[in-house]
Amino acid sequence: MTQMIRVTYLIETPDDPQAVAARIAADQSTGTFTDLPGETPALRARHAARVESVTPLDDHALPAIPQAQGVTGPFYRASATIAYPLDSIGTDIAALMTVTLGGVFAMRGLSGIRVTGLDLPAAFACHPGPQFGIDGSRRLMGVPQGPMIASIIKPSLGLSPQDTAEVVRMLCDAGVDFIKDDEKMMSPAYSPLEDRVRAVMPVIRDHAERTGKTVMYAFGISAADPDLMMRNHDHVLRHGGNAAVININSVGHGGFSFLRKRSQLCLHAHRNGWDLLTRHQGLGYDFGPYQQIWRLLGVDQFQINGIGAKYWEPDDSFVQSFADVSRPIFSPADRPLPVVCSGQWGGQAFETRRRTGQSLDLMYLGGGGIHGHPNGPAAGIRAIRHAWRAAAAGLTIQQAAAEHPDFRAAYEKWGRP
Amino acid sequence: MTQMIRVTYLIETPDDPQAVAARIAADQSTGTFTDLPGETPALRARHAARVESVTPLDDHALPAIPQAQGVTGPFYRASATIAYPLDSIGTDIAALMTVTLGGVFAMRGLSGIRVTGLDLPAAFACHPGPQFGIDGSRRLMGVPQGPMIASIIKPSLGLSPQDTAEVVRMLCDAGVDFIKDDEKMMSPAYSPLEDRVRAVMPVIRDHAERTGKTVMYAFGISAADPDLMMRNHDHVLRHGGNAAVININSVGHGGFSFLRKRSQLCLHAHRNGWDLLTRHQGLGYDFGPYQQIWRLLGVDQFQINGIGAKYWEPDDSFVQSFADVSRPIFSPADRPLPVVCSGQWGGQAFETRRRTGQSLDLMYLGGGGIHGHPNGPAAGIRAIRHAWRAAAAGLTIQQAAAEHPDFRAAYEKWGRP
Repeated sequence: MTQMIRVTYLIETPDDPQAVAARIAADQSTGTFTDLPGETPALRARHAARVESVTPLDDHALPAIPQAQGVTGPFYRASATIAYPLDSIGTDIAALMTVTLGGVFAMRGLSGIRVTGLDLPAAFACHPGPQFGIDGSRRLMGVPQGPMIASIIKPSLGLSPQDTAEVVRMLCDAGVDFIKDDEKMMSPAYSPLEDRVRAVMPVIRDHAERTGKTVMYAFGISAADPDLMMRNHDHVLRHGGNAAVININSVGHGGFSFLRKRSQLCLHAHRNGWDLLTRHQGLGYDFGPYQQIWRLLGVDQFQINGIGAKYWEPDDSFVQSFADVSRPIFSPADRPLPVVCSGQWGGQAFETRRRTGQSLDLMYLGGGGIHGHPNGPAAGIRAIRHAWRAAAAGLTIQQAAAEHPDFRAAYEKWGRP
Repeated sequence: MTQMIRVTYLIETPDDPQAVAARIAADQSTGTFTDLPGETPALRARHAARVESVTPLDDHALPAIPQAQGVTGPFYRASATIAYPLDSIGTDIAALMTVTLGGVFAMRGLSGIRVTGLDLPAAFACHPGPQFGIDGSRRLMGVPQGPMIASIIKPSLGLSPQDTAEVVRMLCDAGVDFIKDDEKMMSPAYSPLEDRVRAVMPVIRDHAERTGKTVMYAFGISAADPDLMMRNHDHVLRHGGNAAVININSVGHGGFSFLRKRSQLCLHAHRNGWDLLTRHQGLGYDFGPYQQIWRLLGVDQFQINGIGAKYWEPDDSFVQSFADVSRPIFSPADRPLPVVCSGQWGGQAFETRRRTGQSLDLMYLGGGGIHGHPNGPAAGIRAIRHAWRAAAAGLTIQQAAAEHPDFRAAYEKWGRP
């Protein structure tokens, strides 16, 4: 008996969800619009996807995807789980995407469809998964416990390599564990990656020699051409770097897979473009299935926004994402380090801790919340470290602000209700 | 003065579209939530994206993306063109995606956003583009003029390599120009690509020796691992094959780019998963910008559905897609061969021709419409060839059906109003 790949879809349709689920299962295994002589019952039995369950949900009066005139509600919704035989697909991620997560969005008669669950059989443990993950990240940064405090080069665009190196020096002196290029910073004419690496790494090394602390710097090495991305990787490595920011959707599964096989850097994933795949709740993917794919491919650190993010994402969605990345797929080693980010200044430590199972296995990344601190970036970092210590000790945000002048200044700038 | 990358967005917002456009331009170049000391006016002037125009469109009472309670309409809509300095981004496709097509979907205050236009400066002509395109496809298939008539292996899944070879023999005898694996067929346990190539290619060669006609067979070589995809490519090439089906979204920009640099095969693109990016008219991408990216990366043949497709896509959208892929980006050589497909049986030749500028530079791909023909696949292909001859000669579908028994049989099965 073959293992099964189980995919759960939120189906919305003006028709019968049960019939639609059956059509998805048929279309994703036999796939044409008319009866065929060669499609025997035996062949179907061996290779057909099967509907395992269809659980009705509440109807919607309005469709997720606006419909042609004349198509009226109610729009029935259901959660349907379909099982695909592993033997018909294999463990390749491109095959998995194509069969279970690609063609389904093309089906007629749907007014909405979203992939909400992905249950992969043990055969998928063949993928490399994270090379560093949580433990490796801690080891490279020399932070055995507690959150890793991180910042980002600001302004995001426009700084020369030398200006970037100055910001790095300032952040190192201020006491960060990790610094990254903005995800939009790869290798533009005014700051070619090669030159940026040459300018930044001496600062990192110098700081390590003076203090014993090696700050992790993640360079933006993304490139659509995997050969170029590997040259970027090698350049970072040659100059003593240990991390890279990868725009996972922009390089795609192939680019990331190519890199991971050869990588000696800790791979920090930025998921820009993901919002298109998830922001409409009746369409696309939940983060759960999406992050499974990228973890199997080898993401070490995964940006997942945070409480009170500057983006559209609601807090509940972040909390769910944190739980998603913290849950082993096949083993605890396949968990990436959650990177809590976007609009963070420390004040969110309290609610983050409360809502993420008290975990301190996280990177806490501040951009404007550090660079824009009224007393300067060093104060911004001190404020964040204090906030996490206070949160871990069970203090309230007000108690923490009363105790520490830098955090109080941040609280007064960004935290007042 | 640097060249500019111009991107046009359909913006929908309960706020002021002009202000939202300005925020997109700012966020995609400086990108934080608070004022920063290093972000000088000079830096902004050099690197900031600029809003070039904001053209109001009609308001919508309902948002494209359902909003939190309390956010009420009207939802203002506008078409906004933003110019990004090339020097701030470069010509890398991953950088282009990240800066102009990625982060924008994350912005707060939008109730919808769709990329509707992409105007790339000449520097982007550095990308390889199609290796074969229209002319190369014609040359490899030996079809100097008129549509290339194509079919697909059916059933899509479940056939052994030997069974597949039998279907290939039958289709070759029936007179097709091109055959392809179903996009869901890559290398499953019951039909490993290696064995399928070994079984199919002798049939192609034997047919070529007997008739002088080399049928193009596109093997499903997609794999998330580019090294494996190249091994697949090499295996096809070694056995005399000249084409491959690539699931472009499943392998991603990096995988495709890696393949194109080394490829000696004609690359037939299947865009499964694209529907998620485009099906909701208020979200995602138009096909126009999307196909530009993939053409620059090197797609030779592009599946774009057809009139009366079995999928959700309306005919108008297909007609627009045909126009999109037929318009040169930088030169006529960067046009891929349009592959008209999905639910095609020949009857659509008349409207296809009428609505696509009378072009015969296309591949016409029938699956069920050939395999499911009442008199068998050879009759299915004869019916389609007759339909195209009749359409080109200006006959009506009824006249064509009256003239030719095989096309009449198809018309009676699928074409009756």
